[in-house]
Amino acid sequence: MDVMPRIEQALEQAIAQGSGEAAPPLLEAAIRHAVFPGGGRVRPRLCLAVALACGDDAPQLSDAAAAALELLHCASLVHDDLPCFDDAATRRGRPSVHAAYGERLAVLVGDGLIVRAFELLAWSAPAHPERAAKLASIIGRAVGIASGIVAGQAWECEPEVELTEYHRQKTAALFFAATEAGAAAAGQASAPWYGFGEKLGLAYQVADDLRDVALSEADMGKPMGQDQAHGRPSAVVELGLDGALARLQALIGAALEAIPACPGQAKLADLVRAEMRRLLPAELADRL
Amino acid sequence: MDVMPRIEQALEQAIAQGSGEAAPPLLEAAIRHAVFPGGGRVRPRLCLAVALACGDDAPQLSDAAAAALELLHCASLVHDDLPCFDDAATRRGRPSVHAAYGERLAVLVGDGLIVRAFELLAWSAPAHPERAAKLASIIGRAVGIASGIVAGQAWECEPEVELTEYHRQKTAALFFAATEAGAAAAGQASAPWYGFGEKLGLAYQVADDLRDVALSEADMGKPMGQDQAHGRPSAVVELGLDGALARLQALIGAALEAIPACPGQAKLADLVRAEMRRLLPAELADRL
Repeated sequence: MDVMPRIEQALEQAIAQGSGEAAPPLLEAAIRHAVFPGGGRVRPRLCLAVALACGDDAPQLSDAAAAALELLHCASLVHDDLPCFDDAATRRGRPSVHAAYGERLAVLVGDGLIVRAFELLAWSAPAHPERAAKLASIIGRAVGIASGIVAGQAWECEPEVELTEYHRQKTAALFFAATEAGAAAAGQASAPWYGFGEKLGLAYQVADDLRDVALSEADMGKPMGQDQAHGRPSAVVELGLDGALARLQALIGAALEAIPACPGQAKLADLVRAEMRRLLPAELADRL
Repeated sequence: MDVMPRIEQALEQAIAQGSGEAAPPLLEAAIRHAVFPGGGRVRPRLCLAVALACGDDAPQLSDAAAAALELLHCASLVHDDLPCFDDAATRRGRPSVHAAYGERLAVLVGDGLIVRAFELLAWSAPAHPERAAKLASIIGRAVGIASGIVAGQAWECEPEVELTEYHRQKTAALFFAATEAGAAAAGQASAPWYGFGEKLGLAYQVADDLRDVALSEADMGKPMGQDQAHGRPSAVVELGLDGALARLQALIGAALEAIPACPGQAKLADLVRAEMRRLLPAELADRL
């Protein structure tokens, strides 16, 4: 089943809901610019894939969780692109939000998307308030100050950074939240899904590092070689191309082994393999 | 009953919780700088005053709501002070967060405080999940993209602004959320408290505009005359000093009339009068 239409619809509703109330027009335009058209929607797809593997008995809640994850991901990209961070003029082949709408609206878009993500979970609570609270807790942790995206980003401001912990927080956190949230939305225990998401998130980060050096700017729609240019931790900088590929291979294997027993186990494994190949340039994917 | 110790303790716990997990040290220091020592804690005091007037039968939840409101207020101040907005070098008599810790950490502090505010509500949910979801919804709306702080701030980026709507969203929203949240935390209907908070929030904004022109920089701990310098809407700029004082008087009267019947009604009215006098320089307070 293709979950993309579900995701796009959930995101559209997430933005439209409440906007009838009189959102400032430029803010709404800037928010739409940040969210549509999307990238791979990797995190919400992962969330829904796990929810479906767990029965998906409350699809509205799964959709809210999936959309919340994507809004938070978009928020982090908008703030990452700001002049004080990456100063990226382009994103997904178009001007970044601050390039198109100015720095002030870019700050507000990020703030607003974070708020809307948690509003989505609150709005979906009436039918399953306990699950909704659990989702807010899981997702909050993944983006928060102790071990989430904000923490990961903040490690870039510290004099010393440990690569694995940095990647764990900046990228993997939203992946293990996606798997845990998929299970929690479907009323299943979330903890057994943590390991799968964690390995997958670390794998995704290594794949992203590989793309950063291997693909041309035209392919990616954003300036490449940013990690090295900004002195940021990167598996390729640290391990070399072959070393990073080997690490990716090992992480994918570990992720597949970590999928908890469930009806959708084999399908999930296929999905993971396909996603990872899709993320890499063809010549690197063939070496996996 | 003095609620300040409750508020400070709730804020301390809000920051400390989860930080055992390995928050980046500079981020944690910058967050503490943004939250401690506080200003008047006006919003959480209002929230707890209403909760107490409504019975306060779930004090942990009231504390979470009060702390969440204050964290969101602090987040908005940190982002407001950024170079792309007010470019304020000082706040509460000390360097602003970006002046002390740099712009990147200031962006992340704001993001992190927003996330932590919603985590607090999620963490307090187990005993009263329905109330917690209602609180997240009330508070999310007050800071969100349609009619909350983010919207209010974004109106500054639009070519035309309507003064009342602007103040309603940028400042009053968190006040009516504080009153609604106090009632909701205590399990009471929140809607009847909206009008009280709304009038109070508008009054507070007018008082702030009056302070902006009447007090010296040394009194306020931040650069004064900012509204005029930034061409921002201000009741004093629009109505003159006497006109703004008359408007404040009328709004306080309307707020007092809007307090729903409850055991703590008279005490709340006293609190409102005292707060408003406290906010103004003595020579203006005497003219009320």
